[in-house]
Amino acid sequence: MTLARRLLAEGLGTALLLATVVGSGIMGVALSNGNAGIALLANAAATAGVLYVLIAVLGPISGAHFNPVVTLAARWSGAMRNGEALAYIVVQCVAAIAGVVLAHAMFDQPLLQPGTHARTGGAQWLSEGVATFGLLLTILLGVRRAPAAVPALVASYIFAAYWFTASTSFANPAVTIARSLTQSFAGIRPADVGGFIVAQLVGAALAVVVATWLSPAPASVGKGA
Amino acid sequence: MTLARRLLAEGLGTALLLATVVGSGIMGVALSNGNAGIALLANAAATAGVLYVLIAVLGPISGAHFNPVVTLAARWSGAMRNGEALAYIVVQCVAAIAGVVLAHAMFDQPLLQPGTHARTGGAQWLSEGVATFGLLLTILLGVRRAPAAVPALVASYIFAAYWFTASTSFANPAVTIARSLTQSFAGIRPADVGGFIVAQLVGAALAVVVATWLSPAPASVGKGA
Amino acid sequence: MTLARRLLAEGLGTALLLATVVGSGIMGVALSNGNAGIALLANAAATAGVLYVLIAVLGPISGAHFNPVVTLAARWSGAMRNGEALAYIVVQCVAAIAGVVLAHAMFDQPLLQPGTHARTGGAQWLSEGVATFGLLLTILLGVRRAPAAVPALVASYIFAAYWFTASTSFANPAVTIARSLTQSFAGIRPADVGGFIVAQLVGAALAVVVATWLSPAPASVGKGA
Amino acid sequence: MTLARRLLAEGLGTALLLATVVGSGIMGVALSNGNAGIALLANAAATAGVLYVLIAVLGPISGAHFNPVVTLAARWSGAMRNGEALAYIVVQCVAAIAGVVLAHAMFDQPLLQPGTHARTGGAQWLSEGVATFGLLLTILLGVRRAPAAVPALVASYIFAAYWFTASTSFANPAVTIARSLTQSFAGIRPADVGGFIVAQLVGAALAVVVATWLSPAPASVGKGA
Repeated sequence: MTLARRLLAEGLGTALLLATVVGSGIMGVALSNGNAGIALLANAAATAGVLYVLIAVLGPISGAHFNPVVTLAARWSGAMRNGEALAYIVVQCVAAIAGVVLAHAMFDQPLLQPGTHARTGGAQWLSEGVATFGLLLTILLGVRRAPAAVPALVASYIFAAYWFTASTSFANPAVTIARSLTQSFAGIRPADVGGFIVAQLVGAALAVVVATWLSPAPASVGKGA
Repeated sequence: MTLARRLLAEGLGTALLLATVVGSGIMGVALSNGNAGIALLANAAATAGVLYVLIAVLGPISGAHFNPVVTLAARWSGAMRNGEALAYIVVQCVAAIAGVVLAHAMFDQPLLQPGTHARTGGAQWLSEGVATFGLLLTILLGVRRAPAAVPALVASYIFAAYWFTASTSFANPAVTIARSLTQSFAGIRPADVGGFIVAQLVGAALAVVVATWLSPAPASVGKGA
Repeated sequence: MTLARRLLAEGLGTALLLATVVGSGIMGVALSNGNAGIALLANAAATAGVLYVLIAVLGPISGAHFNPVVTLAARWSGAMRNGEALAYIVVQCVAAIAGVVLAHAMFDQPLLQPGTHARTGGAQWLSEGVATFGLLLTILLGVRRAPAAVPALVASYIFAAYWFTASTSFANPAVTIARSLTQSFAGIRPADVGGFIVAQLVGAALAVVVATWLSPAPASVGKGA
Repeated sequence: MTLARRLLAEGLGTALLLATVVGSGIMGVALSNGNAGIALLANAAATAGVLYVLIAVLGPISGAHFNPVVTLAARWSGAMRNGEALAYIVVQCVAAIAGVVLAHAMFDQPLLQPGTHARTGGAQWLSEGVATFGLLLTILLGVRRAPAAVPALVASYIFAAYWFTASTSFANPAVTIARSLTQSFAGIRPADVGGFIVAQLVGAALAVVVATWLSPAPASVGKGA
C-alpha cells in the first residue's frame, strides 16, 4: 500500500469522524428541546456507529488511527518511521478541521466558528487523561487479544467514555484542535486546547506502560498494509 | 438462483425497510410528546435494526441492494447485466412505495399522502451527497475488507448518518420517491425529490471513484447468487 | 439432551423474556415523566438485549423457541414430533405467565392484573400479522443463511418491530396470553387476545410459504440437541 | 500469567467499571432535566459498552470476573485455589471503591459520599436475586455454549437487567459495597448493602445449580491464563 493511499484513508476517516461528532451534536441539540441528555445520547451513538464503520473499512488500509496519540504509540512500538508518523499526524489535523467545516456546511452554518465552550480545570484534565488512558488500553490490548473486534471495541469504549467522563471524552489531539473551531454542542475554547492535549498525552503514555506490563510482547498498533 | 427469486427478495426487503422507516417515524412522533430527538433516536435505531436483519438474511439471495444507486454500482462493476439492473431498480421503487402504504395501513392512516415536508437547498443537497458517498464507501470497501460484517456496517452507518447530516440521510432514490408519499415525520415534498436524487447520484459516483483508488481491485457489490 | 432439560431451558427462557418485557415496561413508565417514547426505547432495548442472551445460551439446549408459532414451524418442517411440540407450547404458556408474575413481584405489584389496554381492530391485526411474518422470516432464513447470527438477528428484528408496528409487535401467542395478565405498559385486554393470536398464525403461515420459496431446502428451526 | 498480572487486570477492570457506573450516572442526571428515564438509558448503555470492552480485552488475562460471586463460582468449580479467589475478591472490592473515587474526582465532587439512596425490602431483594441468577446463568452457559460471545452476552444482559429489575441490577457484592460510597444516582445506603449481598449470593448459588443441570459438564468460569 503506498503512503499516499494510506494518507487518503487516514484523512477521509478523520474527516468523516469529525463531521459526525459535530454534525450529530448540532442535530441533537436542534431536535431535543433543550434536553442535553437526549442530544448526548444521539451524539455518542452516532459517533460510535461511524467509528465502527470507519475502523472496519479503513483499518486494513491505513490502520485507522484517526488520532495523533495512536500514531505516536505506533511510532513508539517501532511499527512506523518518523516521517510516516509525522505525515499521519499532519493529515489527521487538517482532515479533522475539514470535517468540522463539512458539518457546518451541511447544517448551513458559518464554516469556521472559534469555540466558546469553556473546558478547563483539574477535573476536566483528569477526565481527558482517564479517557485517553482507557482508549489506548482498549486499542493496545484489543489489537493483541481480539483483533477482529477492534472496530466494535473502540466504538463501544467511546460511547461509554462520552458519558463517564466530565469532559465527554475528546481523547484525541486532532479532534480537540478541530473542535475549537465550532460553537456547537461539541465545541471547546481555543484557549483550553493545550490543557486537553497535555492530559491526553499523559493518559496515553500511562496506557502504553500498563499495556506493556499486562501483555509483555509488543502490542503494536498496525500501520496499515 | 432464478431472477424471480432474487427480485422477490429485493422487493420484500425494500418494502420492509420502508415500512420500518415510515412506521417507526409515525410511532416515534406519536409517543414522544413533541420531542423530535426521541423520535429520531427511535427511527434511526429501528431502521438500523431492520437493515441489519434484511441484509443478513436476504443478502445471500439477491445481494440485498434495496437501493438503485447500489444496483448501479453493481452494474458499473460488471456484476450485473443491464436487464437485471433495470428489473432490480423497478422492483425497488415499486416495493418502496408498497412499504409506505403498508406502514400507513398498520397505523390506520390514509394509504397515500403526498409529502409536505420541505427538504431543499444547497445544505440539504450537500447532506444527501455526503450521506450517499459514505454509504457507498461503506458498502464498496466493506464487501472487500470485511464481507461478513456488511450487514452490521450498513446498519451502523445509517444510524450515524440519520444524525450527522441535515437531511437525515435518505441516501437512496427509491426511498426518496416512496417517502414523497407520506406526510409523516419521514416525508419529503414531491417537488424536492429530484434534487435529492441528483445529489445521491453525485455522491455515489464519487464513492465509486474513491473506493476504486483506495482499494484497486474491483470492489464489486454482489448480485446475489 | 433429554426432553426434560429442553423443557426447562424453554421455560426458563420464556419466563425471563416475559419478566423483561413487563419489568422494563414498568420501569420505563415509572422513570420517564409521561414520555412514552423513552419508555418504549427502554422496553425495546431491554427486550432485545435479553433475547440476544437467551437465544445464544439456551438455543443450543432447546432451540430457544420461546414462542408457539416457532414451535409450530419446527413441527411443520418435521424437526419435532407432535408430543414434543405440544409439551413445548404448554411450557411456553405457563412460563410466560410465571414471568409476568415475577415482574410484578419484583416491582411490588399485585401478582395477576387482568389487562385493560385495548388492542383491537384491523390496523392492530395487520400489525401483528406483519410483525409475526417478519419474525418468522428472520428465523427461517437466518437459520439457513447465517445461523451463528440468529440471536442478534432476532433481537434486532424485535427492537425494530416494537417501533414499526402499531401494536408494538407481540408476535407470539404465549407472550400475548401472558401480557393479558398485566395492567402495565405492556398489557392487553383478555378480550383482545384471540384476534392477536389469529393474526400471528396467519403471518407465521405466510412466512413459512415465502421462506420455503425463497430458500427451497427445508429451513427447519432446530429442536435443540 | 503471574498472579500479580491477573490481579492488576482484575483491579483495573473493576475500577473502570465502577468509574463508568457512577460517572455516567452523574452525567446522565446532570443532562436530563429530571427525566430519570434518559439518565438510566445513558447509564445502562455506558455500563454495557464498557463491560463489553473490559471483558474482551482483560478476559484473556484474568478471566475478567470483576465480581466476587463470579470468583466464588470459579472457586466452586475447581478452576481457582482458595488463596487466588480471596486475592481476587479483595482486589475487586478495593478497586471498585477506587473507581467510585475516580468518578467523583472527574466530576469535581467530594471523593467519598456515604450513600443515601434507600434500597431495601422484599421486592428489592427479589430483584437482586433474579438479577444475579440471570447474570451467572449467562456467564456459566455462555462460557460453555458461546465463549467468544461472552463479552457481548454479559453487556447485553446487564443493559436489560438495569431495566427489568426494580433494583437496577447491582448483581455484584463489590459493586454494591462501592456504590454505598456515592450519593449520586447509582448510590445505595450502607445499611442496605447486607441485604443486597445476601440476595446476590442466593441468586448466584441457584444459577450454579440450574446451569449444572442444564449443561452437565463443569461449566467453569476461567481464571485467566
